[in-house]
Amino acid sequence: MPRLVDHNERRRQICDVLLDIVSEAGIGAATIREVADRSGWSTGVIGHYFNNRQDLLLGGLRRAAEILAEHNTRVLKTLEGIAALEQILEGSIPLDKRRLALCRIFFFFYAEGMTEEDLRQELESYLLGWRKSVTRAIRDAQAQGDLPAELDPKRIAADLVGLADGLSIHSLLDPRVMAQLREHSPVRFWIRRLAAGLPAGEAVEPTQAKNYAVV
Amino acid sequence: MPRLVDHNERRRQICDVLLDIVSEAGIGAATIREVADRSGWSTGVIGHYFNNRQDLLLGGLRRAAEILAEHNTRVLKTLEGIAALEQILEGSIPLDKRRLALCRIFFFFYAEGMTEEDLRQELESYLLGWRKSVTRAIRDAQAQGDLPAELDPKRIAADLVGLADGLSIHSLLDPRVMAQLREHSPVRFWIRRLAAGLPAGEAVEPTQAKNYAVV
Repeated sequence: MPRLVDHNERRRQICDVLLDIVSEAGIGAATIREVADRSGWSTGVIGHYFNNRQDLLLGGLRRAAEILAEHNTRVLKTLEGIAALEQILEGSIPLDKRRLALCRIFFFFYAEGMTEEDLRQELESYLLGWRKSVTRAIRDAQAQGDLPAELDPKRIAADLVGLADGLSIHSLLDPRVMAQLREHSPVRFWIRRLAAGLPAGEAVEPTQAKNYAVV
Repeated sequence: MPRLVDHNERRRQICDVLLDIVSEAGIGAATIREVADRSGWSTGVIGHYFNNRQDLLLGGLRRAAEILAEHNTRVLKTLEGIAALEQILEGSIPLDKRRLALCRIFFFFYAEGMTEEDLRQELESYLLGWRKSVTRAIRDAQAQGDLPAELDPKRIAADLVGLADGLSIHSLLDPRVMAQLREHSPVRFWIRRLAAGLPAGEAVEPTQAKNYAVV
């Protein structure tokens, strides 16, 4: 009797293989053929889930968005305030293979989203979800007294998400920016500048949040 | 006797027509045919300067980079310190038609630069030039006592350029980010957070730099 296939699970696995290829060899190398070679599934099996290469890449984008959303949910459950804020913002800075794949697939589609309305709306929803998680972490930090109460959480969230994404994009184009990202966390630096508005002694120390590895 | 044609000037004019089309109708509408229709030059004349559409778009990118470099040089000659810093950083935030064209053409090529090495190097040189202008403005502001001397100008420059570019990209994908950019200048907000490290009374007031229109 043939084994029942969990199609959602297989689709997810195919997308994970795709993201591995993207992190190691870039978007250009991410083809149905390459996923087949690497996964052991035939191109026919992969074709059952994705009609063509563009469809496969779009699957990779959706998987990347899912990975980031899961990361953010997990962070908000396990960390608090500024530590959560930093983890959410650093979740897509390309400092390891996994995050490099997420960046490459997102930035590939950002360009397309500027000319294709359906895709733009999809990307808009991902950006909104990201800002919402960041906004929640900022509100938590404010409630705990780690960030000044007078800051507008939504506005700060949009800026910090823009900072993280802008630097990530630049780091993929310019090795000097990448080297700088590896050396210092810009996210931590600017969050400290926000906390600097607090009365002396209440500001977050630079080293305080250093122990949390990005998961 | 035929009139002598200044080929550099004509090339520049063709690229300016292209950028007009990009700002009004997007990259998708920017074709040799459309430039011909709008400029009155034949497709044959345009073909003398640009082999194909990709070549024409690349011409648009180079013209955009030239416009930004000229903007930055002019700003550094006419303004000082924090005012110069703000003008350089806001020079490519898409709040008017001209800057919208610059953003669209740059972000279109950012995606390509991630897979094509020649293009990546070219974009890297533009990013470096931008950061250098910002770094110079930061050093000037430090010399005048408008920004704390202990800040690392190069690092702050990379962050602010990342912030400006990241928010610009997000604003083209998400109308909420665009609305927010129109309402408040994130560049000014974060520069004030840097200045907040100064002793009371020396920090730059929010309104101080509002009179300079982006040129």
